[in-house]
Amino acid sequence: MDPMSTVQPSSPADSLLIRAACGRPDARPPVWFMRQAGRSLPEYRELRVGTSMLEACRTPDLITEITLQPVRRHGVDAAIFFSDIVVPLAAAGIGIDIVPGVGPVVDKPVLDAADVDRIPALDPGDVPYVTEAVGLLVAELGPVPLIGFAGAPFTLASYLIEGGPSRDHARTKAFMHGEPQLWHTLLDRLADTARTFLQVQIDAGASAVQLFDSWAGALSLADYVEFVQPHSRSVLAPLRGSVPLIHFGVGAGELLGAMRDAGADVVGVDWRVPLDEAARRLGPGARVQGNLDPALLGAPWPVVEAATRRVVEQGRAADGHIFNLGHGVPPDTDPTVLTRIVELIRSLDR
Amino acid sequence: MDPMSTVQPSSPADSLLIRAACGRPDARPPVWFMRQAGRSLPEYRELRVGTSMLEACRTPDLITEITLQPVRRHGVDAAIFFSDIVVPLAAAGIGIDIVPGVGPVVDKPVLDAADVDRIPALDPGDVPYVTEAVGLLVAELGPVPLIGFAGAPFTLASYLIEGGPSRDHARTKAFMHGEPQLWHTLLDRLADTARTFLQVQIDAGASAVQLFDSWAGALSLADYVEFVQPHSRSVLAPLRGSVPLIHFGVGAGELLGAMRDAGADVVGVDWRVPLDEAARRLGPGARVQGNLDPALLGAPWPVVEAATRRVVEQGRAADGHIFNLGHGVPPDTDPTVLTRIVELIRSLDR
Repeated sequence: MDPMSTVQPSSPADSLLIRAACGRPDARPPVWFMRQAGRSLPEYRELRVGTSMLEACRTPDLITEITLQPVRRHGVDAAIFFSDIVVPLAAAGIGIDIVPGVGPVVDKPVLDAADVDRIPALDPGDVPYVTEAVGLLVAELGPVPLIGFAGAPFTLASYLIEGGPSRDHARTKAFMHGEPQLWHTLLDRLADTARTFLQVQIDAGASAVQLFDSWAGALSLADYVEFVQPHSRSVLAPLRGSVPLIHFGVGAGELLGAMRDAGADVVGVDWRVPLDEAARRLGPGARVQGNLDPALLGAPWPVVEAATRRVVEQGRAADGHIFNLGHGVPPDTDPTVLTRIVELIRSLDR
Repeated sequence: MDPMSTVQPSSPADSLLIRAACGRPDARPPVWFMRQAGRSLPEYRELRVGTSMLEACRTPDLITEITLQPVRRHGVDAAIFFSDIVVPLAAAGIGIDIVPGVGPVVDKPVLDAADVDRIPALDPGDVPYVTEAVGLLVAELGPVPLIGFAGAPFTLASYLIEGGPSRDHARTKAFMHGEPQLWHTLLDRLADTARTFLQVQIDAGASAVQLFDSWAGALSLADYVEFVQPHSRSVLAPLRGSVPLIHFGVGAGELLGAMRDAGADVVGVDWRVPLDEAARRLGPGARVQGNLDPALLGAPWPVVEAATRRVVEQGRAADGHIFNLGHGVPPDTDPTVLTRIVELIRSLDR
């Protein structure tokens, strides 16, 4: 146990988040929530009236305010940059929009070599609003670390190939197996874009980044290793050592080791795998993030409290644990529950 | 290796399916496909014109013909009784329909104690068409075993509480944690219905049954053990020893041992967990079913062939393996691919 652990951090580099991510955990885990900046907050819903998602993601003042809202309200230990995984695709020039109630919708799904050829790569100059917003946020946040993020190549490819959200990713898998060379060309390009998007956020001052491979859990381990891992690695490897790298997928319990081996410092775990089992699968030096079932947020407080304590306990089996949900905050969540969870976890610091 | 393995079985009890399920595997695994009787077959789509799903499930001649179609076409080693997991609910008197393109839709979702009180239990006399169709099928199938099936209490409860299909089962989980006593009352009743539905099929001559807990994989292990396993056990335990019991859920890799411990002889595995790893998790005596990724059915044949061979190889780590997909046949599957898979697996018998 670190004797400094009850002292408030003086800088992001000294924060509980970064310490846990680097394998130097404190008396209690840092806590933040995936999708903490978003629809569960009335102040967010008010701010978004009349502004589309992509427009909000391109407006530095809005990005800054939305990113700060959950930090102010809940007192979480980290801010997550407000954006969307398709923002860098749209910024690079791909016709894609975020349709309320649906998700990302692509103008023209990627079907063949000509389509792959047309996929542009992101240039850092394409996202000046990101650089500006990260700068504003770092100044506002003081000692609270800002986590940047991007979507991983597989998940981006799934949207481009399916044309939108998909339940079984059947077209994506058919493309992968039917046109493996073209697949690798496409994912190379998307890896470039994801890496650039993360690099922009790191250069502007983000203290950590998370690569979301939201749908990787749809893949068998064999397919993941052959078709996805090399491209996630080409996103993460060049960034190793700059800031801690978190890597997460839903339902990816069979892929935890392979996702770590893609170059992650911290592996996000959904609620299906207990964190002590995740630590066992990852072996010595395991650092994990997660994993309260978001569906529990609608349960009575004693249930939430017991489950939160269990997650914290199980997380002690790892060399570092960042408390989070096992997936994003559901939009209909009562935000006071999130605040109580933060208070509970902070109280464990004694 | 059994010296009799290349001999055609003379009765269902002597079939490859039953032998594998009992831990006496032959040179090659038996093969059938979840949802083999259904929309992937043009002869099925033709037969269903003008007949609703529930109506088809109540008509012995249609059930029989639809169940036989994939046996004739593909030469699979087992027939799966054509029905739907909501058939026993509707037969017991619950207002529920199957809406094309949506799935089961409940007239009045279960919200409170009065709703739970109103849930009727199935009486064997409510499903005479099942008894009749199983009898017809057993006569037609000769040495080919017929697998009966039912939905497990959790999956049935999810439909009743959510009112239809759900992505995250949030209401179901909130009900489970918020009203645990009511939850157990509801699942008790659904377990009665599921057990009765299986018993009817066994009494009429089914050679094995499969209990589908399609959505159990949405649960953490702790929740599964507390809220679901006792009820699945009360379906399966009274049937132990009558015919082999197969138990399957999607994305349930963390629950394999717990699902076996609910009383299953064979555990179905989706494509996320390699069968050798599943056998390791289940320990000595493991008998598994699965687990080709259904999304691969759209890939070029050499990919399908290699993946099929890999599944067969990995399945040898278990004490018995029934070849299947890791989930149901997608409706847009080219059925000739399924026939080729059966031919390939049959060719491994040398």
